[in-house]
Amino acid sequence: MSKQKIGVIGMAVMGRNLAWNIESRGHAVSIFNRSREKTDEVMAESPGRKLVPSYTLEAFVESLEKPRRILLMVQAGAGTDAVIEQLRPLLDKGDILIDGGNTYYKDTVRRGEQLAADGLHFIGTGVSGGEEGALKGPSIMPGGPRDAYDLVAPILTEIAARAPDGEPCVIYIGPGGAGHYVKMVHNGIEYGDMQLIAESYAVLKHVAGLSNEELADVYREWNEGELDSFLIEITSRIFRRKDEKSGKMLVDMILDRAAQKGTGKWTSQSALDLGVPLTLITESVFARVLSSMKEERVAASRVLAGPQVPGFTGDRKAFVESVRRALYMSKIISYAQGFAQLRAASDENRWDLDYGGIAKIFRAGCIIRARFLQKITDAYKHDGALKNLLLDPYFRDVAQSYQAALREVVGEAVRVGVPVPGFSAAVAYYDSYRAETLPANLIQAQRDFFGAHTFERVDEKGSFHAEWAE
Amino acid sequence: MSKQKIGVIGMAVMGRNLAWNIESRGHAVSIFNRSREKTDEVMAESPGRKLVPSYTLEAFVESLEKPRRILLMVQAGAGTDAVIEQLRPLLDKGDILIDGGNTYYKDTVRRGEQLAADGLHFIGTGVSGGEEGALKGPSIMPGGPRDAYDLVAPILTEIAARAPDGEPCVIYIGPGGAGHYVKMVHNGIEYGDMQLIAESYAVLKHVAGLSNEELADVYREWNEGELDSFLIEITSRIFRRKDEKSGKMLVDMILDRAAQKGTGKWTSQSALDLGVPLTLITESVFARVLSSMKEERVAASRVLAGPQVPGFTGDRKAFVESVRRALYMSKIISYAQGFAQLRAASDENRWDLDYGGIAKIFRAGCIIRARFLQKITDAYKHDGALKNLLLDPYFRDVAQSYQAALREVVGEAVRVGVPVPGFSAAVAYYDSYRAETLPANLIQAQRDFFGAHTFERVDEKGSFHAEWAE
Repeated sequence: MSKQKIGVIGMAVMGRNLAWNIESRGHAVSIFNRSREKTDEVMAESPGRKLVPSYTLEAFVESLEKPRRILLMVQAGAGTDAVIEQLRPLLDKGDILIDGGNTYYKDTVRRGEQLAADGLHFIGTGVSGGEEGALKGPSIMPGGPRDAYDLVAPILTEIAARAPDGEPCVIYIGPGGAGHYVKMVHNGIEYGDMQLIAESYAVLKHVAGLSNEELADVYREWNEGELDSFLIEITSRIFRRKDEKSGKMLVDMILDRAAQKGTGKWTSQSALDLGVPLTLITESVFARVLSSMKEERVAASRVLAGPQVPGFTGDRKAFVESVRRALYMSKIISYAQGFAQLRAASDENRWDLDYGGIAKIFRAGCIIRARFLQKITDAYKHDGALKNLLLDPYFRDVAQSYQAALREVVGEAVRVGVPVPGFSAAVAYYDSYRAETLPANLIQAQRDFFGAHTFERVDEKGSFHAEWAE
Repeated sequence: MSKQKIGVIGMAVMGRNLAWNIESRGHAVSIFNRSREKTDEVMAESPGRKLVPSYTLEAFVESLEKPRRILLMVQAGAGTDAVIEQLRPLLDKGDILIDGGNTYYKDTVRRGEQLAADGLHFIGTGVSGGEEGALKGPSIMPGGPRDAYDLVAPILTEIAARAPDGEPCVIYIGPGGAGHYVKMVHNGIEYGDMQLIAESYAVLKHVAGLSNEELADVYREWNEGELDSFLIEITSRIFRRKDEKSGKMLVDMILDRAAQKGTGKWTSQSALDLGVPLTLITESVFARVLSSMKEERVAASRVLAGPQVPGFTGDRKAFVESVRRALYMSKIISYAQGFAQLRAASDENRWDLDYGGIAKIFRAGCIIRARFLQKITDAYKHDGALKNLLLDPYFRDVAQSYQAALREVVGEAVRVGVPVPGFSAAVAYYDSYRAETLPANLIQAQRDFFGAHTFERVDEKGSFHAEWAE
């Protein structure tokens, strides 16, 4: 009996779709699921496909060519640990486990070290693009030992999304937890993108008074320019979608309570540990939390007054363009923060990340795919040591010409009481980052005053303390 | 030989000052330090004081009445673990260890559980007020087993600061890590207070053009009203302080690079875990990080342009009052967020925290001592189940009348390019919290579009999914 080059464990929708994706490139695929029923169900859904089911892990392992390539698509956390423990005694030195779940990167580091003790390879890989990406081509972010990656690179390259220029959306990210770390920051960036679009929607609706139809047109138009991206495209389509039940537009029937699964939170917590000012994504995470406090907000809305000011009286069309510019500039700032975090993590963990390459593999397959990612790749091609994307000439010029619009939109939203935490964080970051001096001299004076924590001086090196109480 | 009621381990300045504080209330105090020299140094500094030195831990333990009360004032982290491990075999059931360091609350939980297995009591206590507070009376936040607290309560009550009404600034906070958790949030609040004052300084200086002398007068005046607090008082004094070296004002000679020791970061990370929107303190933590990136900022200031707009042309005196109002309202919002976090932590850990009592013990001894804390105590007295401080009538009314000023200050700062991340976070939180609807319906639509994550509806319970691609 011939053996398969690769097997997939976990036949939930992501695992099944990835198996189908691999099969569609001409490979027979071994499949296994904890419950036999699920395996049978997938087999029934796969007529004519070269999927080879096993009903025990032993048979599954036996069905694979050596070195075995096993893609785990199971529940992140305890589920992953459980499968690994069951597999471990069945495997041989040199076999390769690939975890394609949304795993916390420190778990990936731990598992990699544990499995390396048995001579087993462990690759933790980000897989972005949801169900459709898994099926047709995701963006893939594999991390782990380089030599093990080389053994799975051909298949990963075949199944990955293709960017507009035909390049596959996969590169070797780096050792250890690098792949899952980059996926985590990708998700954090996704939180930021979605929050910024939501704020643009709130401002266009509540300040400029646009209807759903007008919103659909605006986002469609924006999708033809600098903001061209999957999220802007689906936003336009969302505003055209009717609700059959109510006869109204579906977006107005959806409760304004956003859920989250934790990767945004992890990104912010890691930024705090690394000492990277990831303000915009963090505000986005907190904004989802605030949205989830629906009952409390409704109650508070009855108690807390808004501003008593006249509404917007400016030129609507010009304001729409200002919002577009505010959105693009804020998006750039969010990516500048996210990529600064990748740099800090790379330095801390010695991952030697390829920032331009990472931007490149985000260009297709994944949720944050966007035309502007090419600009990030270009920026790092131009200067591999770039400390912050805002310093690149292209982004610097956008910031220079669009900041007036961002300031206008924040000012107007704050004036009339529409919350714009993301836009506000963007402008505060921009003004802080470009500030030769910040008022932190006062903070240091206070710390020295009450805690003798000392301060540095502008005119001399060293630590100084003053007897303030004198 | 008579034995002492209490001993202190660790003779760095905080430990020494607490020993002196206890001694000044009429108790002889056993002292121990890892290095003999330090102990001798403290003895030499303490003529006529009833300090009893020991040079071995065995002798130190022997010098104490049973149940022994031992206050640990050693390096948080590994240092604390090391001392505890050395002490453990020397102690008897019922003895009480009190950790007064800035310990991470989860370490306190772990140590308490480990020591309980030996029948030993462990109290993790926040001690706020710096060197001077330790000596003359700190704010004390003890957590751990209630019965063990009762055995140390008399001494803690004697050494604690006294609020203006004479009440000692100590209450039993709660079991486990409750004391250190409250101290952590206290420190986070301190970060917020200091950032907001720094922003008020930046705005008064760079927008309204106030001199150091004018700033000193403004903060002195503010200290006589609603903002009356230790930090405002020392801020006024800081602006009067001359630098002997340069002949200039000292504040202008201090480098604008703020340091931090981690408790602010922990507070934000815990808020992210709990799902509490702690935006203002988190922006304050990130603002310190940005301040510390001095070289990068200086380089960026040469590359990134600011807004090309005319400067401030309004009424300076009126603007100063607007900044005062913006500061007070933002401070209220910061405390609203911090106390919401305490509530969430209390619920999660079943600590049954007394929020009004906690505000009360902050009224003296500690860095954030302020007249307005009485308003928080009053708010919880009025409604113990208050979900958010902003909903209390006093704070609601302040917000209602001061929001125009906060909006004006944020608008003007954003217009001219002075970063105000804290003020901006305050207004964004206020407008989000009082928003009956937020644009999160769009976020849920997007999540359902690309990931089939489902959404809730406004008109019906349940989870729904739409086939968006149709």
